[in-house]
Amino acid sequence: MSGAAFIAVDWGTTNRRAYRVEHGRATAAVRDSLGVLSVSGDAFPAKIEALRAELGPLPMLLAGMVGSNRGWVDARYVPAPASAADLAAGLVSPCENVFIVPGVCRDLADRPDVMRGEEVQFLGAVAEGLAPPDALLCQPGTHAKWAIMHDGKLADFTTAMTGEMFALLKDHSLIGSEMQGEGKADAEFRRGVEDSTRADLLSSLFAVRAGSVLGRRAAGTAAAYVSGLLIGTDCRARLKSGQTVYLLAEGRLARLYAIAIAMADATCIPVDSETAFIAGITRIWDALS
Amino acid sequence: MSGAAFIAVDWGTTNRRAYRVEHGRATAAVRDSLGVLSVSGDAFPAKIEALRAELGPLPMLLAGMVGSNRGWVDARYVPAPASAADLAAGLVSPCENVFIVPGVCRDLADRPDVMRGEEVQFLGAVAEGLAPPDALLCQPGTHAKWAIMHDGKLADFTTAMTGEMFALLKDHSLIGSEMQGEGKADAEFRRGVEDSTRADLLSSLFAVRAGSVLGRRAAGTAAAYVSGLLIGTDCRARLKSGQTVYLLAEGRLARLYAIAIAMADATCIPVDSETAFIAGITRIWDALS
Repeated sequence: MSGAAFIAVDWGTTNRRAYRVEHGRATAAVRDSLGVLSVSGDAFPAKIEALRAELGPLPMLLAGMVGSNRGWVDARYVPAPASAADLAAGLVSPCENVFIVPGVCRDLADRPDVMRGEEVQFLGAVAEGLAPPDALLCQPGTHAKWAIMHDGKLADFTTAMTGEMFALLKDHSLIGSEMQGEGKADAEFRRGVEDSTRADLLSSLFAVRAGSVLGRRAAGTAAAYVSGLLIGTDCRARLKSGQTVYLLAEGRLARLYAIAIAMADATCIPVDSETAFIAGITRIWDALS
Repeated sequence: MSGAAFIAVDWGTTNRRAYRVEHGRATAAVRDSLGVLSVSGDAFPAKIEALRAELGPLPMLLAGMVGSNRGWVDARYVPAPASAADLAAGLVSPCENVFIVPGVCRDLADRPDVMRGEEVQFLGAVAEGLAPPDALLCQPGTHAKWAIMHDGKLADFTTAMTGEMFALLKDHSLIGSEMQGEGKADAEFRRGVEDSTRADLLSSLFAVRAGSVLGRRAAGTAAAYVSGLLIGTDCRARLKSGQTVYLLAEGRLARLYAIAIAMADATCIPVDSETAFIAGITRIWDALS
């Protein structure tokens, strides 16, 4: 099917991006908030037809949480190391001409891990030459994903609860009321990254409260500081000095990680997530032929 | 006033313990759940009179959150290093014959910290000979307190958000639904303490979820494992191999910390909190005379 047109969908928990892909390029796109949590199980076929009405009567290849047990059908996981061909061999088809990409798992006793969706971007980034075949890639977020690529395969990976921890602290902890706004890429963020070298998150977090009580912390600075503590902790656990990280992120999160990566004496090279997705999903589609 | 009878109250956020103290011994006690959060500001004088009706018409010395800005009056903080005499010199009197013990602060830019209530136990443990004048003491809980005593003074300390983090994860995180029950002192707890040596809490927490998804984690084991991760992280940040910790705790929490301390190749010596409180509050009372 190499080169043949198809519809690729990056179908996440809360958002969805669909593309008509022809010869490896997106020639049309639909972006909306119809994530899998807002689609009931039996409504998926209708959503598929609606996408085809917009993008053309084409076969479809879906990736992301649509293949989880909260999505349309459970597309399971293939074990790392995984290539685009391995993902193609594990496709699940919920109905004619619709295929769902499996996730990737690290099924090891010492530290089990899973991803679903990010594998397409990671493999695509390397396939497209945006990162070399042996590289460390990072896609930050609620659950930050760090991928170790080897020979162009997704060889190993680590998920960190970085974004979720920020939200937990902001919404429910003793210091939450001080964490107004989003963490900005400012001096307080840098101070948090610096303090993350103490590797003592549980006491650094309490120090936010103590600093306010003692009048040492200016109002409105806690969100950036805690963001720096958490992102700094995440980066330092994954990085060695002198290493290069290929970062799949946009906007504020890209700026924050770029700072923390630089402060760990590592080099950050930005990679466009959408380009990486189109490249990765095309490789999986081509592997079907 | 040395040796003279008085009423000592350990008045916390949710609980209260009051004692009639004569010649350094508790000769009567009242324990209830009338913590400061359940007493409105102008109701304190009536609660004081009710305690006197039970324990005798005596002068009163109160410690704990009753001296916070959410308590009766703000008794402020004295800076570490602090002795019983320093606390006595900082007493605040909201009405005749009633005194409130100030908290202790670590008012330093690198890591500000505060405590309120635990300082009485720490100083009392040493004064009573339950711990030597130069020692590391720990009082675990929502905000675990680690005190470094030097020459019998509270020289320095660290607060870790250990118990609060457990509650945040249990009540609000992705892995919360798996964290049923309390963390037990079992093999899963020990495995969590072991994994805390990776010093990568953010990824170890996500691995709890991944382990369940991959069928590697038995149902009902997550609470003990996460408890081990957090308590292990707390202990390892504070302890060196071969060190001795004097532990002010009871019941399940005492067992969990004793295991984690032993697994960090340190020695744990239990100290009775109530004995330490009576000893500490008596020293402050005596210092008034």
